[in-house]
Amino acid sequence: MAKASVVPTILITNDDGITAPGIRNLVEAVRDLGKIIVVAPDKPQSGMGHAITIGQPLRMNKIEMFEGIESWQTSGTPVDCVKLAVDKILHRKPDLCLSGINHGANHSINVIYSGTMSAAMEASIEGIPSIGFSLLNYNYEADFEPARHYVRKIVSSLLQKKMDKHLLLNVNIPSIPMELIMGIKICRQAYAKYREDFKERKDPHGKKYYWLTGAFVNFDKGTDTDVWALDNNYVSVVPVQFDLTNYTLKLQLEKNWKIK
Amino acid sequence: MAKASVVPTILITNDDGITAPGIRNLVEAVRDLGKIIVVAPDKPQSGMGHAITIGQPLRMNKIEMFEGIESWQTSGTPVDCVKLAVDKILHRKPDLCLSGINHGANHSINVIYSGTMSAAMEASIEGIPSIGFSLLNYNYEADFEPARHYVRKIVSSLLQKKMDKHLLLNVNIPSIPMELIMGIKICRQAYAKYREDFKERKDPHGKKYYWLTGAFVNFDKGTDTDVWALDNNYVSVVPVQFDLTNYTLKLQLEKNWKIK
Repeated sequence: MAKASVVPTILITNDDGITAPGIRNLVEAVRDLGKIIVVAPDKPQSGMGHAITIGQPLRMNKIEMFEGIESWQTSGTPVDCVKLAVDKILHRKPDLCLSGINHGANHSINVIYSGTMSAAMEASIEGIPSIGFSLLNYNYEADFEPARHYVRKIVSSLLQKKMDKHLLLNVNIPSIPMELIMGIKICRQAYAKYREDFKERKDPHGKKYYWLTGAFVNFDKGTDTDVWALDNNYVSVVPVQFDLTNYTLKLQLEKNWKIK
Repeated sequence: MAKASVVPTILITNDDGITAPGIRNLVEAVRDLGKIIVVAPDKPQSGMGHAITIGQPLRMNKIEMFEGIESWQTSGTPVDCVKLAVDKILHRKPDLCLSGINHGANHSINVIYSGTMSAAMEASIEGIPSIGFSLLNYNYEADFEPARHYVRKIVSSLLQKKMDKHLLLNVNIPSIPMELIMGIKICRQAYAKYREDFKERKDPHGKKYYWLTGAFVNFDKGTDTDVWALDNNYVSVVPVQFDLTNYTLKLQLEKNWKIK
């Protein structure tokens, strides 16, 4: 993206649905930084990862949601929302895509399960610089004030620069009072994940069913990770890419692969 | 994984559902290479990416599907299947996870949307070496003979080696007769993607809805990519990783990031 000389168009989406406080706080944080357009799911879509809707058609409706801002809700996933916004609503690429503010952490391995980050990644694949924001608090009553502050800081600063068209950032904000936040840290994705523990229940007919739960475990002792930064009261910024090639393993296999 | 001195346990899953010809061909290709257990979705789950089921409970049922092989169908996504298999069916990690054989290509950017590859990636995150297989043919009547041949070749060879516990391979097989296949090529993920084109329809009540379609476009001129390999009649093998950190951009940002 060239440095925005005219008013930049900013697409906003999320995965908690268009009625979630997080997206309202995102809109309020940046509403005067560009021409805002919101295209978001009509219901919560957490944990949808990079799902797209293939076997079913999609619906979308223009709604009144944020004063003075064009807003659409769709029946699709967060990734569908980005695709619909570009192809059917804007009819062009926006200058920037923002996703969130997610209710809950998207650090470490969460980047892969997260609908918030998948929407941002979809924009980046399309060649739209993109940022996903998450607050480390699942509560709908959470205090978004510090998150709004850092969102605005990061977005207004990046809009002054020439951004790579595939720029993709995963920003997580600790849920602590503003004065305790130590600043912003550029990080790598921690190797930390969930230890699954499905809870078994029985329905009224005696048949078993299972709820996914899990304990978060950090296997990564590095002090350069997003988990470390957040544990130490920093806002974490992880630059993310959609090329999943493992180049180290590629080199090894090129040397040692014997299967023809 | 240590070199398999005893019979290895091999978990098989897919995203086209447990009744798809692709998973049957995968089972048949490797059934004598270890103790096979199948845990797969009870319905097609294409394009589910790394979706997990959070807001709803999951069901699973043991069924008769492949002669002499323990098989379970679940109501979950491909990623849910891997999680359920480890936590509730095997009660331990298998030695290897195989996903597929997918009906249709999972090269280039498809790795991100693919339920087949997301299941394999979930296993890799868990520390289970894992391979996703895809045949470049959507037809349920497709000839899986060449695919079976290469699946068996790759799996039996890897079982003889000490594999990294996070080993993750994305294998795509061209849909051409065996004698035309040039061999196996280690590749990187091509930068190639879909140009979205939602088709608009109207329902009987006059309301619009949209079907996701798109034309595949390869922006990548490299001869080291999976798309190039497949276009040139090779089986493509892309080593994949779940660390999405963009280390090049991380270095740049560490130097130039001015936002505190």
